[in-house]
Amino acid sequence: MDSRAGLAATPRALPYYVAFSQLLGLTVVATTGAWLGLYRGGIAWEGALQFNVHPLSMVIGLIFLQGDALLVYRVFRNETKRTTKVLHGLLHVFALVIALVGVVAVFDYHRKKGYADLYSLHSWCGLLVLVLYFVQWLVGLSFFLFPGASFSLRSRYRPQHVFFGAAIFLLSVGTALLGLKEALLFKLGAKYSTFEAEGVLANVLGLLLVGFGVTVLYILTRSDWKRPPQAEEQALSMDFKTLTEGDSPGSQ
Amino acid sequence: MDSRAGLAATPRALPYYVAFSQLLGLTVVATTGAWLGLYRGGIAWEGALQFNVHPLSMVIGLIFLQGDALLVYRVFRNETKRTTKVLHGLLHVFALVIALVGVVAVFDYHRKKGYADLYSLHSWCGLLVLVLYFVQWLVGLSFFLFPGASFSLRSRYRPQHVFFGAAIFLLSVGTALLGLKEALLFKLGAKYSTFEAEGVLANVLGLLLVGFGVTVLYILTRSDWKRPPQAEEQALSMDFKTLTEGDSPGSQ
Repeated sequence: MDSRAGLAATPRALPYYVAFSQLLGLTVVATTGAWLGLYRGGIAWEGALQFNVHPLSMVIGLIFLQGDALLVYRVFRNETKRTTKVLHGLLHVFALVIALVGVVAVFDYHRKKGYADLYSLHSWCGLLVLVLYFVQWLVGLSFFLFPGASFSLRSRYRPQHVFFGAAIFLLSVGTALLGLKEALLFKLGAKYSTFEAEGVLANVLGLLLVGFGVTVLYILTRSDWKRPPQAEEQALSMDFKTLTEGDSPGSQ
Repeated sequence: MDSRAGLAATPRALPYYVAFSQLLGLTVVATTGAWLGLYRGGIAWEGALQFNVHPLSMVIGLIFLQGDALLVYRVFRNETKRTTKVLHGLLHVFALVIALVGVVAVFDYHRKKGYADLYSLHSWCGLLVLVLYFVQWLVGLSFFLFPGASFSLRSRYRPQHVFFGAAIFLLSVGTALLGLKEALLFKLGAKYSTFEAEGVLANVLGLLLVGFGVTVLYILTRSDWKRPPQAEEQALSMDFKTLTEGDSPGSQ
Protein backbone atom coordinates (compact mmCIF):
# COMPACT_ATOMS: atom_id res chain seq x y z
CA MET A 1 0.00 0.00 0.00
CA ASP A 2 2.93 2.27 0.42
CA SER A 3 4.82 2.06 -2.86
CA ARG A 4 5.52 5.75 -3.30
CA ALA A 5 8.42 5.39 -5.70
CA GLY A 6 7.37 6.21 -9.28
CA LEU A 7 4.46 4.35 -10.88
CA ALA A 8 2.57 2.04 -8.59
CA ALA A 9 1.68 -1.37 -10.00
CA THR A 10 -2.02 -2.05 -10.51
CA PRO A 11 -3.20 -4.96 -8.32
CA ARG A 12 -3.50 -8.07 -10.50
CA ALA A 13 -7.19 -8.88 -10.00
CA LEU A 14 -8.46 -5.25 -9.97
CA PRO A 15 -8.91 -4.80 -13.77
CA TYR A 16 -11.06 -7.96 -13.94
CA TYR A 17 -13.31 -6.73 -11.15
CA VAL A 18 -13.58 -3.29 -12.78
CA ALA A 19 -14.40 -4.90 -16.15
CA PHE A 20 -17.02 -7.07 -14.45
CA SER A 21 -18.56 -4.02 -12.74
CA GLN A 22 -18.81 -2.21 -16.10
CA LEU A 23 -20.36 -5.26 -17.74
CA LEU A 24 -22.91 -5.44 -14.91
CA GLY A 25 -23.57 -1.69 -15.02
CA LEU A 26 -24.17 -1.69 -18.78
CA THR A 27 -26.38 -4.77 -18.44
CA VAL A 28 -28.43 -2.91 -15.81
CA VAL A 29 -28.90 0.05 -18.21
CA ALA A 30 -29.69 -2.27 -21.15
CA THR A 31 -32.16 -4.34 -19.09
CA THR A 32 -33.91 -1.16 -17.93
CA GLY A 33 -34.17 -0.10 -21.57
CA ALA A 34 -35.43 -3.55 -22.59
CA TRP A 35 -38.05 -3.54 -19.80
CA LEU A 36 -39.33 -0.07 -20.81
CA GLY A 37 -39.22 -0.95 -24.52
CA LEU A 38 -40.84 -4.38 -24.33
CA TYR A 39 -43.48 -3.82 -21.65
CA ARG A 40 -43.97 -0.08 -21.23
CA GLY A 41 -44.17 1.21 -24.80
CA GLY A 42 -40.76 2.89 -24.94
CA ILE A 43 -39.75 6.43 -24.12
CA ALA A 44 -40.91 9.91 -25.09
CA TRP A 45 -40.98 13.32 -23.40
CA GLU A 46 -44.58 13.99 -24.44
CA GLY A 47 -47.63 11.99 -23.36
CA ALA A 48 -47.98 8.84 -21.31
CA LEU A 49 -44.45 7.66 -22.13
CA GLN A 50 -42.92 10.61 -20.26
CA PHE A 51 -42.98 8.57 -17.06
CA ASN A 52 -40.54 6.10 -18.63
CA VAL A 53 -37.87 8.81 -18.87
CA HIS A 54 -37.73 8.61 -15.05
CA PRO A 55 -36.45 5.02 -14.48
CA LEU A 56 -34.01 5.16 -17.40
CA SER A 57 -32.50 8.52 -16.36
CA MET A 58 -32.20 7.50 -12.71
CA VAL A 59 -30.51 4.20 -13.60
CA ILE A 60 -28.04 5.89 -15.97
CA GLY A 61 -27.36 8.81 -13.63
CA LEU A 62 -27.69 7.69 -10.02
CA ILE A 63 -26.71 4.03 -10.52
CA PHE A 64 -24.27 3.62 -13.41
CA LEU A 65 -22.56 7.04 -13.50
CA GLN A 66 -22.57 7.48 -9.72
CA GLY A 67 -21.03 4.01 -9.33
CA ASP A 68 -18.36 4.80 -11.90
CA ALA A 69 -17.59 8.14 -10.24
CA LEU A 70 -16.80 6.21 -7.03
CA LEU A 71 -14.43 3.90 -8.93
CA VAL A 72 -12.36 6.71 -10.48
CA TYR A 73 -9.69 6.57 -7.76
CA ARG A 74 -9.32 2.80 -8.16
CA VAL A 75 -9.09 2.91 -11.97
CA PHE A 76 -6.85 5.97 -12.45
CA ARG A 77 -3.97 5.07 -10.20
CA ASN A 78 -1.09 6.97 -11.76
CA GLU A 79 -2.71 10.11 -13.12
CA THR A 80 -2.22 13.28 -11.08
CA LYS A 81 -4.48 13.61 -8.09
CA ARG A 82 -5.96 16.80 -9.56
CA THR A 83 -6.95 15.14 -12.86
CA THR A 84 -8.56 12.25 -10.97
CA LYS A 85 -10.44 14.65 -8.68
CA VAL A 86 -11.78 16.66 -11.62
CA LEU A 87 -12.94 13.47 -13.36
CA HIS A 88 -14.59 12.26 -10.12
CA GLY A 89 -16.38 15.61 -9.69
CA LEU A 90 -17.44 15.79 -13.37
CA LEU A 91 -18.88 12.27 -13.41
CA HIS A 92 -20.94 13.22 -10.36
CA VAL A 93 -22.16 16.38 -12.14
CA PHE A 94 -23.22 14.34 -15.20
CA ALA A 95 -24.93 11.85 -12.88
CA LEU A 96 -26.81 14.64 -11.09
CA VAL A 97 -27.88 16.43 -14.30
CA ILE A 98 -29.20 13.19 -15.85
CA ALA A 99 -30.95 12.35 -12.56
CA LEU A 100 -32.57 15.81 -12.50
CA VAL A 101 -33.97 15.19 -16.01
CA GLY A 102 -35.50 12.00 -14.61
CA VAL A 103 -36.94 13.84 -11.60
CA VAL A 104 -38.44 16.63 -13.77
CA ALA A 105 -39.97 13.92 -16.02
CA VAL A 106 -41.84 12.24 -13.17
CA PHE A 107 -43.04 15.49 -11.53
CA ASP A 108 -44.20 16.80 -14.93
CA TYR A 109 -45.97 13.51 -15.66
CA HIS A 110 -47.69 13.55 -12.25
CA ARG A 111 -48.75 17.18 -12.76
CA LYS A 112 -50.30 16.45 -16.18
CA LYS A 113 -52.11 13.37 -14.83
CA GLY A 114 -53.17 15.06 -11.59
CA TYR A 115 -51.36 12.44 -9.46
CA ALA A 116 -50.13 13.22 -5.94
CA ASP A 117 -46.40 13.76 -5.40
CA LEU A 118 -44.00 12.49 -2.77
CA TYR A 119 -46.32 10.16 -0.89
CA SER A 120 -44.39 6.89 -1.29
CA LEU A 121 -41.36 5.47 0.49
CA HIS A 122 -39.63 5.41 -2.92
CA SER A 123 -40.14 9.16 -3.32
CA TRP A 124 -39.05 9.92 0.27
CA CYS A 125 -35.86 7.90 -0.18
CA GLY A 126 -35.31 9.48 -3.60
CA LEU A 127 -35.64 13.00 -2.20
CA LEU A 128 -33.22 12.11 0.60
CA VAL A 129 -30.71 10.77 -1.95
CA LEU A 130 -30.91 13.93 -4.08
CA VAL A 131 -30.45 16.29 -1.13
CA LEU A 132 -27.56 14.25 0.32
CA TYR A 133 -25.97 13.88 -3.13
CA PHE A 134 -26.03 17.65 -3.74
CA VAL A 135 -24.73 18.47 -0.25
CA GLN A 136 -21.97 15.83 -0.53
CA TRP A 137 -20.93 17.26 -3.91
CA LEU A 138 -20.81 20.85 -2.63
CA VAL A 139 -18.90 19.96 0.53
CA GLY A 140 -16.55 17.70 -1.46
CA LEU A 141 -15.90 20.51 -3.94
CA SER A 142 -15.13 23.08 -1.27
CA PHE A 143 -12.84 20.75 0.69
CA PHE A 144 -10.95 19.02 -2.08
CA LEU A 145 -11.02 21.07 -5.27
CA PHE A 146 -10.50 24.59 -3.95
CA PRO A 147 -7.11 25.23 -2.42
CA GLY A 148 -8.60 26.85 0.68
CA ALA A 149 -8.99 23.83 2.95
CA SER A 150 -5.94 22.87 4.95
CA PHE A 151 -4.32 19.47 4.47
CA SER A 152 -5.26 18.54 8.03
CA LEU A 153 -8.92 19.44 7.44
CA ARG A 154 -8.93 17.41 4.20
CA SER A 155 -7.41 14.39 5.94
CA ARG A 156 -10.05 14.49 8.61
CA TYR A 157 -12.94 14.96 6.18
CA ARG A 158 -11.77 12.37 3.59
CA PRO A 159 -13.02 9.20 5.42
CA GLN A 160 -16.40 10.89 6.04
CA HIS A 161 -16.64 11.82 2.34
CA VAL A 162 -15.85 8.24 1.31
CA PHE A 163 -18.33 6.73 3.80
CA PHE A 164 -21.19 9.04 2.86
CA GLY A 165 -20.39 8.63 -0.85
CA ALA A 166 -20.76 4.86 -0.50
CA ALA A 167 -23.89 5.23 1.68
CA ILE A 168 -25.58 7.59 -0.82
CA PHE A 169 -24.74 5.18 -3.66
CA LEU A 170 -26.23 2.23 -1.77
CA LEU A 171 -29.31 4.25 -0.87
CA SER A 172 -29.66 5.07 -4.58
CA VAL A 173 -29.63 1.35 -5.39
CA GLY A 174 -32.22 0.70 -2.67
CA THR A 175 -34.40 3.53 -3.95
CA ALA A 176 -34.23 2.10 -7.49
CA LEU A 177 -35.38 -1.29 -6.15
CA LEU A 178 -38.33 0.38 -4.39
CA GLY A 179 -39.27 2.26 -7.57
CA LEU A 180 -39.05 -0.89 -9.66
CA LYS A 181 -41.28 -2.75 -7.20
CA GLU A 182 -43.76 0.15 -7.20
CA ALA A 183 -43.94 0.22 -11.01
CA LEU A 184 -44.52 -3.55 -11.07
CA LEU A 185 -47.22 -3.67 -8.41
CA PHE A 186 -49.13 -0.67 -9.79
CA LYS A 187 -49.33 -2.29 -13.23
CA LEU A 188 -49.34 -6.04 -12.62
CA GLY A 189 -51.15 -6.20 -9.27
CA ALA A 190 -52.20 -9.79 -8.55
CA LYS A 191 -50.81 -10.90 -11.95
CA TYR A 192 -47.31 -10.42 -10.47
CA SER A 193 -47.81 -13.75 -8.66
CA THR A 194 -48.40 -15.68 -11.91
CA PHE A 195 -44.78 -15.22 -12.99
CA GLU A 196 -45.69 -12.83 -15.84
CA ALA A 197 -42.72 -12.28 -18.18
CA GLU A 198 -42.51 -8.59 -17.19
CA GLY A 199 -42.38 -9.49 -13.50
CA VAL A 200 -39.58 -12.00 -14.01
CA LEU A 201 -37.57 -9.57 -16.16
CA ALA A 202 -38.01 -6.83 -13.56
CA ASN A 203 -36.93 -9.21 -10.75
CA VAL A 204 -33.80 -10.05 -12.77
CA LEU A 205 -33.19 -6.32 -13.20
CA GLY A 206 -33.51 -5.95 -9.41
CA LEU A 207 -30.89 -8.65 -8.81
CA LEU A 208 -28.59 -7.04 -11.42
CA LEU A 209 -28.91 -3.71 -9.56
CA VAL A 210 -27.96 -5.46 -6.31
CA GLY A 211 -25.03 -7.16 -8.08
CA PHE A 212 -23.74 -3.83 -9.46
CA GLY A 213 -24.03 -2.21 -6.02
CA VAL A 214 -22.15 -5.03 -4.29
CA THR A 215 -19.41 -5.15 -6.95
CA VAL A 216 -18.75 -1.38 -6.81
CA LEU A 217 -18.71 -1.54 -2.99
CA TYR A 218 -16.26 -4.45 -3.06
CA ILE A 219 -13.82 -2.66 -5.39
CA LEU A 220 -14.17 0.53 -3.34
CA THR A 221 -13.57 -1.01 0.07
CA ARG A 222 -10.79 -3.53 -0.62
CA SER A 223 -7.95 -1.98 1.32
CA ASP A 224 -5.10 -3.28 -0.86
CA TRP A 225 -6.77 -1.76 -3.93
CA LYS A 226 -6.78 1.79 -2.61
CA ARG A 227 -4.92 4.39 -4.66
CA PRO A 228 -1.39 4.70 -3.28
CA PRO A 229 -0.31 8.25 -2.35
CA GLN A 230 2.06 9.67 -4.94
CA ALA A 231 5.24 11.68 -4.60
CA GLU A 232 3.50 14.62 -6.28
CA GLU A 233 0.82 14.69 -3.56
CA GLN A 234 3.41 14.95 -0.83
CA ALA A 235 4.84 17.99 -2.56
CA LEU A 236 1.45 19.52 -3.33
CA SER A 237 0.29 19.14 0.21
CA MET A 238 3.02 21.51 1.31
CA ASP A 239 1.06 24.31 -0.34
CA PHE A 240 -1.84 23.75 1.97
CA LYS A 241 -0.34 24.74 5.29
CA THR A 242 0.73 21.21 6.12
CA LEU A 243 3.89 22.31 7.77
CA THR A 244 2.32 25.07 9.81
CA GLU A 245 -0.23 22.62 11.18
CA GLY A 246 2.37 19.96 11.86
CA ASP A 247 0.44 17.14 10.18
CA SER A 248 2.13 14.18 8.63
CA PRO A 249 0.77 13.53 5.12
CA GLY A 250 0.53 9.82 5.82
CA SER A 251 -1.89 10.32 8.68
CA GLN A 252 -5.56 9.56 8.11
CA MET B 1 -4.94 1.94 16.44
CA ASP B 2 -1.94 0.11 17.72
CA SER B 3 -2.16 0.40 21.48
CA ARG B 4 -1.31 -3.21 22.34
CA ALA B 5 -0.23 -2.62 25.90
CA GLY B 6 -2.89 -3.73 28.37
CA LEU B 7 -6.43 -2.38 28.07
CA ALA B 8 -7.09 -0.27 25.02
CA ALA B 9 -9.04 2.95 25.58
CA THR B 10 -12.49 3.07 23.99
CA PRO B 11 -12.70 5.87 21.40
CA ARG B 12 -14.54 8.80 22.94
CA ALA B 13 -17.46 9.11 20.51
CA LEU B 14 -18.00 5.37 19.96
CA PRO B 15 -20.36 4.71 22.94
CA TYR B 16 -22.68 7.52 21.80
CA TYR B 17 -22.88 6.11 18.30
CA VAL B 18 -23.50 2.59 19.66
CA ALA B 19 -26.22 3.93 22.00
CA PHE B 20 -27.79 5.79 19.06
CA SER B 21 -27.72 2.63 16.94
CA GLN B 22 -29.48 0.67 19.71
CA LEU B 23 -32.08 3.40 20.13
CA LEU B 24 -32.70 3.35 16.37
CA GLY B 25 -32.80 -0.47 16.26
CA LEU B 26 -35.31 -0.70 19.12
CA THR B 27 -37.39 2.07 17.53
CA VAL B 28 -37.44 0.04 14.29
CA VAL B 29 -38.71 -3.04 16.17
CA ALA B 30 -41.27 -0.98 18.13
CA THR B 31 -42.50 0.82 15.00
CA THR B 32 -42.90 -2.52 13.20
CA GLY B 33 -44.93 -3.76 16.18
CA ALA B 34 -46.99 -0.55 16.22
CA TRP B 35 -47.69 -0.82 12.47
CA LEU B 36 -48.83 -4.45 12.78
CA GLY B 37 -50.83 -3.73 15.94
CA LEU B 38 -52.53 -0.54 14.77
CA TYR B 39 -53.23 -1.35 11.12
CA ARG B 40 -52.91 -5.11 10.66
CA GLY B 41 -54.82 -6.57 13.60
CA GLY B 42 -51.82 -7.75 15.62
CA ILE B 43 -50.04 -11.09 15.60
CA ALA B 44 -51.06 -14.73 15.95
CA TRP B 45 -49.75 -18.04 14.61
CA GLU B 46 -53.20 -19.26 13.58
CA GLY B 47 -55.47 -17.64 11.00
CA ALA B 48 -55.07 -14.48 8.93
CA LEU B 49 -52.73 -12.86 11.46
CA GLN B 50 -50.05 -15.51 10.83
CA PHE B 51 -48.67 -13.37 8.01
CA ASN B 52 -47.82 -10.66 10.55
CA VAL B 53 -45.33 -12.97 12.27
CA HIS B 54 -43.21 -12.60 9.13
CA PRO B 55 -42.33 -8.87 9.17
CA LEU B 56 -41.83 -8.78 12.96
CA SER B 57 -39.55 -11.85 13.02
CA MET B 58 -37.48 -10.66 10.07
CA VAL B 59 -37.01 -7.19 11.58
CA ILE B 60 -35.98 -8.61 14.97
CA GLY B 61 -33.75 -11.33 13.47
CA LEU B 62 -32.27 -10.09 10.21
CA ILE B 63 -32.23 -6.37 11.01
CA PHE B 64 -31.78 -5.73 14.74
CA LEU B 65 -29.92 -8.88 15.88
CA GLN B 66 -27.87 -9.17 12.70
CA GLY B 67 -26.85 -5.52 13.04
CA ASP B 68 -25.89 -6.04 16.67
CA ALA B 69 -23.89 -9.16 15.82
CA LEU B 70 -21.79 -7.02 13.46
CA LEU B 71 -21.14 -4.48 16.23
CA VAL B 72 -19.86 -7.05 18.77
CA TYR B 73 -16.19 -6.42 17.89
CA ARG B 74 -16.62 -2.66 18.28
CA VAL B 75 -18.46 -2.89 21.63
CA PHE B 76 -16.43 -5.63 23.35
CA ARG B 77 -12.95 -4.25 22.95
CA ASN B 78 -11.13 -5.79 25.90
CA GLU B 79 -12.76 -9.19 26.31
CA THR B 80 -10.81 -12.15 24.96
CA LYS B 81 -11.06 -12.68 21.23
CA ARG B 82 -12.62 -16.11 21.80
CA THR B 83 -15.46 -14.73 24.00
CA THR B 84 -16.19 -12.03 21.44
CA LYS B 85 -16.20 -14.55 18.59
CA VAL B 86 -18.61 -16.86 20.43
CA LEU B 87 -20.96 -13.93 21.15
CA HIS B 88 -20.76 -12.83 17.50
CA GLY B 89 -21.56 -16.39 16.31
CA LEU B 90 -24.37 -16.86 18.85
CA LEU B 91 -26.09 -13.57 17.98
CA HIS B 92 -26.05 -14.66 14.34
CA VAL B 93 -27.59 -18.04 15.33
CA PHE B 94 -30.39 -16.28 17.24
CA ALA B 95 -30.93 -13.97 14.27
CA LEU B 96 -31.13 -16.92 11.87
CA VAL B 97 -33.50 -18.95 14.07
CA ILE B 98 -35.89 -16.00 14.53
CA ALA B 99 -35.70 -15.27 10.79
CA LEU B 100 -36.55 -18.91 10.02
CA VAL B 101 -39.67 -18.65 12.19
CA GLY B 102 -40.64 -15.64 10.08
CA VAL B 103 -39.98 -17.53 6.84
CA VAL B 104 -42.00 -20.57 7.98
CA ALA B 105 -44.85 -18.21 8.94
CA VAL B 106 -45.12 -16.68 5.48
CA PHE B 107 -44.81 -20.00 3.59
CA ASP B 108 -47.41 -21.59 5.89
CA TYR B 109 -49.73 -18.60 5.44
CA HIS B 110 -49.32 -18.75 1.63
CA ARG B 111 -50.01 -22.51 1.63
CA LYS B 112 -53.21 -22.15 3.66
CA LYS B 113 -54.41 -19.28 1.43
CA GLY B 114 -53.32 -20.98 -1.80
CA TYR B 115 -51.05 -18.06 -2.74
CA ALA B 116 -48.02 -18.52 -5.01
CA ASP B 117 -44.55 -18.50 -3.45
CA LEU B 118 -41.32 -16.82 -4.44
CA TYR B 119 -42.56 -14.75 -7.37
CA SER B 120 -41.62 -11.27 -6.13
CA LEU B 121 -38.33 -9.37 -6.05
CA HIS B 122 -38.73 -9.20 -2.26
CA SER B 123 -38.83 -13.00 -2.03
CA TRP B 124 -35.93 -13.46 -4.45
CA CYS B 125 -33.78 -11.04 -2.45
CA GLY B 126 -34.92 -12.69 0.80
CA LEU B 127 -33.96 -16.15 -0.43
CA LEU B 128 -30.58 -14.80 -1.53
CA VAL B 129 -30.04 -13.23 1.91
CA LEU B 130 -30.91 -16.50 3.73
CA VAL B 131 -28.60 -18.64 1.58
CA LEU B 132 -25.71 -16.17 1.82
CA TYR B 133 -26.29 -15.73 5.58
CA PHE B 134 -26.13 -19.47 6.20
CA VAL B 135 -23.06 -19.98 3.99
CA GLN B 136 -21.28 -17.00 5.60
CA TRP B 137 -22.02 -18.40 9.07
CA LEU B 138 -20.74 -21.90 8.18
CA VAL B 139 -17.58 -20.60 6.50
CA GLY B 140 -17.00 -18.14 9.36
CA LEU B 141 -17.39 -20.93 11.92
CA SER B 142 -14.96 -23.25 10.18
CA PHE B 143 -12.34 -20.55 9.63
CA PHE B 144 -12.49 -18.68 12.93
CA LEU B 145 -13.96 -20.85 15.66
CA PHE B 146 -12.33 -24.19 14.97
CA PRO B 147 -8.60 -24.28 15.53
CA GLY B 148 -7.94 -25.96 12.16
CA ALA B 149 -7.45 -22.94 9.94
CA SER B 150 -3.97 -21.48 9.85
CA PHE B 151 -3.36 -17.91 10.96
CA SER B 152 -2.37 -16.98 7.43
CA LEU B 153 -5.62 -18.40 6.00
CA ARG B 154 -7.64 -16.52 8.64
CA SER B 155 -5.87 -13.26 7.89
CA ARG B 156 -6.62 -13.62 4.19
CA TYR B 157 -10.27 -14.59 4.75
CA ARG B 158 -11.06 -11.97 7.42
CA PRO B 159 -11.56 -8.95 5.11
CA GLN B 160 -13.82 -11.06 2.84
CA HIS B 161 -15.86 -12.16 5.87
CA VAL B 162 -16.25 -8.55 7.01
CA PHE B 163 -17.19 -7.30 3.53
CA PHE B 164 -19.77 -10.02 2.88
CA GLY B 165 -21.13 -9.65 6.40
CA ALA B 166 -21.79 -5.96 5.77
CA ALA B 167 -23.17 -6.67 2.28
CA ILE B 168 -25.60 -9.33 3.58
CA PHE B 169 -26.75 -6.96 6.32
CA LEU B 170 -27.38 -4.15 3.82
CA LEU B 171 -29.19 -6.55 1.49
CA SER B 172 -31.35 -7.56 4.47
CA VAL B 173 -32.28 -3.90 5.02
CA GLY B 174 -33.06 -3.51 1.30
CA THR B 175 -35.18 -6.67 1.33
CA ALA B 176 -37.12 -5.37 4.34
CA LEU B 177 -37.83 -2.12 2.47
CA LEU B 178 -39.12 -4.12 -0.52
CA GLY B 179 -41.34 -6.22 1.73
CA LEU B 180 -42.72 -3.16 3.49
CA LYS B 181 -43.53 -1.54 0.14
CA GLU B 182 -45.19 -4.74 -1.08
CA ALA B 183 -47.37 -4.99 2.06
CA LEU B 184 -48.39 -1.34 1.65
CA LEU B 185 -49.25 -1.48 -2.05
CA PHE B 186 -51.16 -4.76 -1.77
CA LYS B 187 -53.39 -3.33 0.95
CA LEU B 188 -53.58 0.41 0.28
CA GLY B 189 -53.32 0.44 -3.52
CA ALA B 190 -54.31 3.88 -4.84
CA LYS B 191 -55.13 5.03 -1.28
CA TYR B 192 -51.36 5.10 -0.64
CA SER B 193 -51.25 8.39 -2.56
CA THR B 194 -53.75 10.07 -0.23
CA PHE B 195 -51.27 10.10 2.66
CA GLU B 196 -53.21 7.50 4.68
CA ALA B 197 -51.90 7.27 8.25
CA GLU B 198 -50.70 3.69 7.69
CA GLY B 199 -48.74 4.72 4.60
CA VAL B 200 -47.03 7.60 6.41
CA LEU B 201 -46.16 5.38 9.42
CA ALA B 202 -44.75 2.71 7.09
CA ASN B 203 -42.68 5.32 5.21
CA VAL B 204 -41.27 6.51 8.54
CA LEU B 205 -40.48 2.86 9.39
CA GLY B 206 -38.67 2.62 6.04
CA LEU B 207 -36.53 5.67 6.83
CA LEU B 208 -35.79 4.29 10.32
CA LEU B 209 -34.61 1.03 8.70
CA VAL B 210 -32.32 3.03 6.40
CA GLY B 211 -31.05 5.02 9.40
CA PHE B 212 -30.25 1.88 11.39
CA GLY B 213 -28.42 0.36 8.39
CA VAL B 214 -26.33 3.49 7.83
CA THR B 215 -25.48 3.88 11.54
CA VAL B 216 -24.34 0.24 11.91
CA LEU B 217 -22.29 0.56 8.72
CA TYR B 218 -20.68 3.77 9.98
CA ILE B 219 -19.65 2.24 13.31
CA LEU B 220 -18.40 -0.87 11.52
CA THR B 221 -16.28 0.88 8.90
CA ARG B 222 -14.67 3.72 10.87
CA SER B 223 -11.07 2.66 10.81
CA ASP B 224 -10.05 4.25 14.14
CA TRP B 225 -12.87 2.40 15.90
CA LYS B 226 -11.67 -1.08 14.92
CA ARG B 227 -10.87 -3.46 17.76
CA PRO B 228 -7.14 -3.23 18.50
CA PRO B 229 -5.23 -6.54 18.43
CA GLN B 230 -4.44 -7.71 21.95
CA ALA B 231 -1.35 -9.24 23.46
CA GLU B 232 -3.25 -12.48 23.99
CA GLU B 233 -4.01 -12.74 20.26
CA GLN B 234 -0.35 -12.44 19.37
CA ALA B 235 0.40 -15.36 21.68
CA LEU B 236 -2.56 -17.43 20.51
CA SER B 237 -1.69 -16.94 16.91
CA MET B 238 1.57 -18.80 17.52
CA ASP B 239 -0.47 -21.99 17.90
CA PHE B 240 -1.76 -21.71 14.39
CA LYS B 241 1.42 -22.25 12.44
CA THR B 242 2.13 -18.55 12.17
CA LEU B 243 5.82 -18.98 12.50
CA THR B 244 6.07 -21.84 10.03
CA GLU B 245 4.19 -19.78 7.45
CA GLY B 246 6.24 -16.69 8.11
CA ASP B 247 3.27 -14.36 8.49
CA SER B 248 3.41 -11.32 10.66
CA PRO B 249 0.28 -11.06 12.84
CA GLY B 250 0.10 -7.34 12.21
CA SER B 251 -0.20 -7.73 8.44
CA GLN B 252 -3.45 -6.93 6.60
